[in-house]
Amino acid sequence: MDLINVMKNITGRARKAAASLGVMPTKKKNAILLKMAKALDQARDSIGEANEVDVANARGKGKSKAFVDRLKLDDKRIDGMCSMMREVAALDDPVGTVLEKKKRPNGLVIEKVRVPIGVIGIIYEARPNVTADCVSLCLKSGNAVILRGGSDAINSNKAICGALKKAAEAEGLNEGAFILIEDTSREIVDAMLASSDGIDLIMPRGGESLISEVAARSKVPVIKHYKGICHVYVDAEADLNMAEDICFNAKVQRPGVCNAMETMLVHEAVAEKFLPRIAAELRGSGVKMKGCPRTREILGSDVAEAGEKDFATEWLDLILNIRVVRSLEEAIEHIARFGSNHSDAIVTRNRRTGEEFTGRVDSAAVYVNASTRFTDGGEFGKGAEIGISTDKLHARGPMGLEELCTYKYVIRGRGQIRT
Amino acid sequence: MDLINVMKNITGRARKAAASLGVMPTKKKNAILLKMAKALDQARDSIGEANEVDVANARGKGKSKAFVDRLKLDDKRIDGMCSMMREVAALDDPVGTVLEKKKRPNGLVIEKVRVPIGVIGIIYEARPNVTADCVSLCLKSGNAVILRGGSDAINSNKAICGALKKAAEAEGLNEGAFILIEDTSREIVDAMLASSDGIDLIMPRGGESLISEVAARSKVPVIKHYKGICHVYVDAEADLNMAEDICFNAKVQRPGVCNAMETMLVHEAVAEKFLPRIAAELRGSGVKMKGCPRTREILGSDVAEAGEKDFATEWLDLILNIRVVRSLEEAIEHIARFGSNHSDAIVTRNRRTGEEFTGRVDSAAVYVNASTRFTDGGEFGKGAEIGISTDKLHARGPMGLEELCTYKYVIRGRGQIRT
Repeated sequence: MDLINVMKNITGRARKAAASLGVMPTKKKNAILLKMAKALDQARDSIGEANEVDVANARGKGKSKAFVDRLKLDDKRIDGMCSMMREVAALDDPVGTVLEKKKRPNGLVIEKVRVPIGVIGIIYEARPNVTADCVSLCLKSGNAVILRGGSDAINSNKAICGALKKAAEAEGLNEGAFILIEDTSREIVDAMLASSDGIDLIMPRGGESLISEVAARSKVPVIKHYKGICHVYVDAEADLNMAEDICFNAKVQRPGVCNAMETMLVHEAVAEKFLPRIAAELRGSGVKMKGCPRTREILGSDVAEAGEKDFATEWLDLILNIRVVRSLEEAIEHIARFGSNHSDAIVTRNRRTGEEFTGRVDSAAVYVNASTRFTDGGEFGKGAEIGISTDKLHARGPMGLEELCTYKYVIRGRGQIRT
Repeated sequence: MDLINVMKNITGRARKAAASLGVMPTKKKNAILLKMAKALDQARDSIGEANEVDVANARGKGKSKAFVDRLKLDDKRIDGMCSMMREVAALDDPVGTVLEKKKRPNGLVIEKVRVPIGVIGIIYEARPNVTADCVSLCLKSGNAVILRGGSDAINSNKAICGALKKAAEAEGLNEGAFILIEDTSREIVDAMLASSDGIDLIMPRGGESLISEVAARSKVPVIKHYKGICHVYVDAEADLNMAEDICFNAKVQRPGVCNAMETMLVHEAVAEKFLPRIAAELRGSGVKMKGCPRTREILGSDVAEAGEKDFATEWLDLILNIRVVRSLEEAIEHIARFGSNHSDAIVTRNRRTGEEFTGRVDSAAVYVNASTRFTDGGEFGKGAEIGISTDKLHARGPMGLEELCTYKYVIRGRGQIRT
């Protein structure tokens, strides 16, 4: 069987499962999630063994420490997967919510009802906990999911899915509800990306190159969890103590994540006062600074020069670009040019300046007087997230259960016809 | 300048205009719309002359009567464009609506605010009234729009845009707010479809082949207004008088549109009673029927045989497929297999059967006891529509001003940091 037909078989099974998942009662979905959590817990030894094989292989291939760390499933991570599944079971069911209801003059009652998207494809790298995340979130939102994880985690993924599947099928879940593709070739990804009839949405999860490659080649709609080049702009009318706390938090608290600050913009009116203060704090935490000429005048030439390439870089590290700007206008222009439409913040005491910033900065999350680090499904009250969209269509920012749904119009009449 | 750079210049101008459109006050947008309507009215002679050139060229090329009819702008059509612009001015502004507001335990106030998508691209055929529709709807929803109409309507489009532009610029509208691409080559369309940074959404408007070609080649997200293979299912417990009215309306009232019925499904328990009645009515209106074997047994062999190809065809004409089914299940399966996720209806007196149908049929609009012909922006209370989405992401069904928007999160704090 060629890969196109292999994929047709897979998407056909998923589509069939999606039809029953879409109308599955909440109680039933929650019962399955709890059973799966239990099964995962009980299978921790065999999952651990499978993971050890993956880890040994990765080390043998000379993969980086960070890579192996993401791949590794210790007891704490398995506990995390189990508790995540229980948490998803406890979240509200997004399916069936009436988003809008209108009665038209002709008596037709039009409801806009939230429904699952259908079949979701996930293409991800060597992070086996993503497997359990995606199975849970898709199940709860009534979607079937097709998983294609990285080859380096294949043994872990098989062990996890095996345990989940056994529990799920004992509860009567259709076997196509979640399907792990065990073929780790590049060609099967191509077949997946070509399945415009069989898959409704593909979400790539991983590094920049994976995401841009999937987006460039896919015939299936893709929502990108892309890079976060996040800014904090310290306005002329900022409370500088607050600005110091926010900038320090946004850069240092967890520099390796997408909602961390990469560039700090400082109004020239406060630069001389603010920069030495924040720089001392940042230096104390080992942050390497790169600045515009004015920044270097103020902070000294041990601050490296920041060029256009730096401003366009997602460091994901203890490195910070700094630029002094002459106005709010210049800050907004900088963000429009170099930002990634993820999360940007202003620190200001001037309400109108804040409103102008939030109105004009075109990002998924725009903050006034708070750290960019809050862009997260949990912090936004969504309970869990499948990713953070940096796209503009369908969903922006943290994507939880609701964002894994679409809607349909249900129209009830008494025989109305159009004249 | 090569076409990639030509397109970069165009999208750059549009992006700049979008930035100001996104924060333009409602009053200002409405004033521009009303001035544009007036300008169109006053330019009717020059628009008419330009259109005559297009019509003469089309006739010279031997284009069909239907083609020339869609191309032609008579006084009534120009009136229609002017009144549409005034109607759009009267609609509520979708931008800035707070869709959700949450206060988090840490005091952060998170608002989900409706904002324009940004830059919209429209690729369409020889219907010059689409030009005025798209300019109005995009302006009111705060989006910049790039228009690439068919070569056969180029003179009409230039005349329309010329009139609109003069009025708009006198009102201070940024010149990039709507840009007509005058290059009618296929290569410029390729450059447009490749502009994943410059254009946020492309909507193809036209026949099936245009839409599938754009969707297959685009690197920019596309929302498809695709074909409508709409069904009416007459249940065993249908009110047969109502079923007759609905089926007749759905097929005959305007057969050339996407929300007209293409296939009628009839439960076997009522087929013998219902089919002869509706067939007499349909025959009286010149409808050509194609039926399954059971239908032909009941109605006679002058009803042609309907095969799989027929069930998969959007006739857009006085042709109807008929199939007798044994159950609701079989009706739902038929729709899943042959439908186009557009509009489908059930006629039944049984509330539970109706609910099962609306729950399980995966279409943008699902009707109980009403004609599929109501799937329309106006009928849904949206005032106007830019298309009817048959996709599942971002928007389904009629797309009005709200669906030309996305959202952003605006988060206001008092210095909150993440711990």
